[in-house]
Amino acid sequence: MIAPRDSVGQRSETVRRSNLSAIVRELHLRGPLSRSDLVAHTGLTRSAIRGLIGELVGGGLVTETRSAPAGTPGRPSPIVHPEPRAAVVLALEVTVDSLAAACVGFGGAIHALVRVDRPRAHVTLEEIVADLVELAEPILAGTPHDELVGIGVAVAGIVRRTDGIVRQAPNLGWQDEPLGERLAAAFPQVPIAVANEADLGGLAEHRRGAAVDADDVIYLMGEVGVGGNVIVGGQALVGAAGYAGEIGHMIVNPDGALCGCGSFGCWETEIGEGAMLLRAGRSPSGGREAVDELIAAAEAGERRALESIGHVARWLGVGLATLINLLNPTLVVLGGVLARIHPLIAEDLDDVLDRRALRASREMVQVKPGALGTDGPLLGAAELAFEPMLADPAARLAAVDRNPPVLASA
Amino acid sequence: MIAPRDSVGQRSETVRRSNLSAIVRELHLRGPLSRSDLVAHTGLTRSAIRGLIGELVGGGLVTETRSAPAGTPGRPSPIVHPEPRAAVVLALEVTVDSLAAACVGFGGAIHALVRVDRPRAHVTLEEIVADLVELAEPILAGTPHDELVGIGVAVAGIVRRTDGIVRQAPNLGWQDEPLGERLAAAFPQVPIAVANEADLGGLAEHRRGAAVDADDVIYLMGEVGVGGNVIVGGQALVGAAGYAGEIGHMIVNPDGALCGCGSFGCWETEIGEGAMLLRAGRSPSGGREAVDELIAAAEAGERRALESIGHVARWLGVGLATLINLLNPTLVVLGGVLARIHPLIAEDLDDVLDRRALRASREMVQVKPGALGTDGPLLGAAELAFEPMLADPAARLAAVDRNPPVLASA
Repeated sequence: MIAPRDSVGQRSETVRRSNLSAIVRELHLRGPLSRSDLVAHTGLTRSAIRGLIGELVGGGLVTETRSAPAGTPGRPSPIVHPEPRAAVVLALEVTVDSLAAACVGFGGAIHALVRVDRPRAHVTLEEIVADLVELAEPILAGTPHDELVGIGVAVAGIVRRTDGIVRQAPNLGWQDEPLGERLAAAFPQVPIAVANEADLGGLAEHRRGAAVDADDVIYLMGEVGVGGNVIVGGQALVGAAGYAGEIGHMIVNPDGALCGCGSFGCWETEIGEGAMLLRAGRSPSGGREAVDELIAAAEAGERRALESIGHVARWLGVGLATLINLLNPTLVVLGGVLARIHPLIAEDLDDVLDRRALRASREMVQVKPGALGTDGPLLGAAELAFEPMLADPAARLAAVDRNPPVLASA
Repeated sequence: MIAPRDSVGQRSETVRRSNLSAIVRELHLRGPLSRSDLVAHTGLTRSAIRGLIGELVGGGLVTETRSAPAGTPGRPSPIVHPEPRAAVVLALEVTVDSLAAACVGFGGAIHALVRVDRPRAHVTLEEIVADLVELAEPILAGTPHDELVGIGVAVAGIVRRTDGIVRQAPNLGWQDEPLGERLAAAFPQVPIAVANEADLGGLAEHRRGAAVDADDVIYLMGEVGVGGNVIVGGQALVGAAGYAGEIGHMIVNPDGALCGCGSFGCWETEIGEGAMLLRAGRSPSGGREAVDELIAAAEAGERRALESIGHVARWLGVGLATLINLLNPTLVVLGGVLARIHPLIAEDLDDVLDRRALRASREMVQVKPGALGTDGPLLGAAELAFEPMLADPAARLAAVDRNPPVLASA
């Protein structure tokens, strides 16, 4: 790994904040840990951990319990628990077929989750925002004002992360829509972050799903659109403005069909849900029901369904060979429809990869379906909303300190 | 930017090493800087800079001079100079057409450089290593044993960085050749790092060429093979084992020609030097001379030459559209033959990108030729060789301390 050009020296006064962040992130992602585990995972000294945990207990973010005495000599190490009600986020999702909202607590506990179908038609930004606000209301009922630390939004489009503008969302009929700004007007009290749904699906699989502990991952989500997320050296690839990972618009077949983006032969035109349904003689806008039927037909041996799924396997292989040669990942995680058809295509896909990817990179990569199902992107939106608190828990502690909660015992 | 999952707490005792590294890296890349510049670039305090510069002066790595009094009030800030003879590296390069060696000093000064043509034929590893050793001898003459801190090697093949094995180099006829190990036997005194030539060409353009200060860059080098390097958020994309960035083996034309790698329609088969020459009715193995002639013919308006170069422009555009959608860079740097033909193809290329890349990412990317010419990969090999010292100058200081040089004044 080559270090960045503008390496910056570390001031000692930033060390405390950075150490608090390391502890809080571990607890959020791994759940309850003993102090010894925290020493092992963060590389901090035992006394540093003791002091910082004291601060977090004081701020109500964690609690400690004695662990049961183990067979090993010495005092058992106390267990540190993230407090799931001390900080919660609101996660929202806008897909082509549905809207969803969830309230997720520190440590990843899902306090509430709701998903509603919506007609597959172009709608205005105002309508979507009104629907999201309505959906969120019961979800947030009972959440005190000061527990909510952030809002994360997953949307089926290309998003500029800095201001939450949806630059292009052909399947919603949007161009340059200020989704972040409108939601901020509806929820003025907390920071709002908006990102692409596939980026967030990948983030969720990386943090809590099929790609935990893998550092070089391609996440590929096939729905109406085909999107993805690339994890490089443990970090999400976002690009200069957050538009990176538009995997569905790799040109895999230069002589191929017109794509919603205006180009031709994008991967989406070969492996997207619509193309798959159309090639099997079904309505490309049939949605989840039509996909269920197609998969059942393929499993029953219907020729046209099998041919269509075989076509997806081949083009999935061609595009993945390019990505594997380019990115040298250890893991490819399939989401959405592609996860559902994976058992049907696994063998053909392996065969294409063997023939078309470079041997050195091919032999170290595994392809598997995601672990989080449909709610992956929504859970990723929750992770995005937690990010400011994980990056700087000291700021959260200071905020709690200014508005101390009423404690049962102090 | 989403922080890595395994954020690690920072121990105070690592801070000194990290701060020394920040200073040494700045001086190596930017050249002489005033103490005030170092404060500004590293974020360190003035007193921390003073102490650390003292250590570096003591170890002979830097010298200080008074700057000329400026018009501003107060004492002028001393200028810190990297000492180009305090630490040097040997850079080596194995291309299809030539071998090269250079001795480069701390701060980037090229003390010596030699390049020799070699016949375009498959040769054994032993022959190449013997030739490299012979080439390096006069280059290193006069370099005291303890000044040499590392050796970097650029090679036209896929390299496993951990052990310097060349996994695949079709244009050299190599497979799984232990280049790093053989060179280590010839130069036992210092660490040796081996990497792909295009990876290193990109590194050099990023550190000292056309991509300085750009954080999201695609470097694309067209020669006999087509290789590349991707810089993501200021870091080189290396992948799980260092094989990433095999841009030439993106499948851009699934029905295209057989590639040296065994797949079909790789980018290399459409925009590589051989394909370009063949399409213009010339010998694909004509080398630099044939390329010179082709470019001259195109500039003179010869139809077949223009058609061949137009073909490269179109396929360059198709592949770059995919990469721009995937990586959202601000800059594409062309190297090798592609840099030389850039003036002839710039307009056509822009047109293809306008039509085929996503607008959001397209409008923020610029395409330009590299600044370092043929020696880019060799200079990148030097940077690779300096990396251990830049990452931990404290170790270098300790080594100097054990074998103190004779100082003119102490």
